[in-house]
Amino acid sequence: MKKLATVTLSAALALTSTTVFADDKIEDAIDYRQSVFTAIRYNFGTMGDMMKGKIDFDAKEFNRRADNVAALSKMPLEAFIPGSYKDSDDDTDALPAIGENWDKFSKGMGMFGDNAAALASTATDSSSKDDVASAFMKVAKSCKGCHDNFKD
Amino acid sequence: MKKLATVTLSAALALTSTTVFADDKIEDAIDYRQSVFTAIRYNFGTMGDMMKGKIDFDAKEFNRRADNVAALSKMPLEAFIPGSYKDSDDDTDALPAIGENWDKFSKGMGMFGDNAAALASTATDSSSKDDVASAFMKVAKSCKGCHDNFKD
Repeated sequence: MKKLATVTLSAALALTSTTVFADDKIEDAIDYRQSVFTAIRYNFGTMGDMMKGKIDFDAKEFNRRADNVAALSKMPLEAFIPGSYKDSDDDTDALPAIGENWDKFSKGMGMFGDNAAALASTATDSSSKDDVASAFMKVAKSCKGCHDNFKD
Repeated sequence: MKKLATVTLSAALALTSTTVFADDKIEDAIDYRQSVFTAIRYNFGTMGDMMKGKIDFDAKEFNRRADNVAALSKMPLEAFIPGSYKDSDDDTDALPAIGENWDKFSKGMGMFGDNAAALASTATDSSSKDDVASAFMKVAKSCKGCHDNFKD
């Protein structure tokens, strides 16, 4: 019996260890995607303030922030993993609908990335507000599209 | 007196409003740079696990993460603004030494960006661990350099 008990204990510890690791992985993934979205909001928010006329339009700064948003937009998708949605974790506003409609969600995130890349290509250090308005609105709409369907 | 009192009240409100805005700006800046560093750690940590042999080396994933780190490395510098250091705000580990030694700090951050860009250029979808080892270590050292001097 002693040997069996030892084996069972080892198996239990191994299971615990794996479970802890999985939890860490989920928390890290949530933390990562939320951080990336915070960084996107910081850059895109300033661009929005320029478009709305709340602050002066600065083509060079707009261009730099458009590059940042384009790079950031490609990052979060990998972090929407099973077990990281609002049904199983309260630290997130990401709805289980993401896992249930993965094709739609990942296409939406892909479109966000494509639109952000197009805005980054359009913006230059000498572009005017009119030059970037249409590309900017496309990015804003792709944010809203996913938020409406997949964010609490 | 009535007119003077009104003017003083308006001035006081205007001051309050500006103060609140400045506080928001500082909190947003701290939040932004911490988010960017979280995203850097997420990507660089996985690259480190590959380099240490904790997980299999995957050239394609390493390359993608090196691109992410290079893009992210250029973002946080703008968010180290006066009033956002540990002497005036407890939400941060960024030491006042940053403001007091701005040239050294900004050069360090610039070197981090240069080293991250060099690693991203070196890494390809078919590079080996040996191919990227030296460029990877340079990035790791530039992280440590700033943390030793400027992070609590």
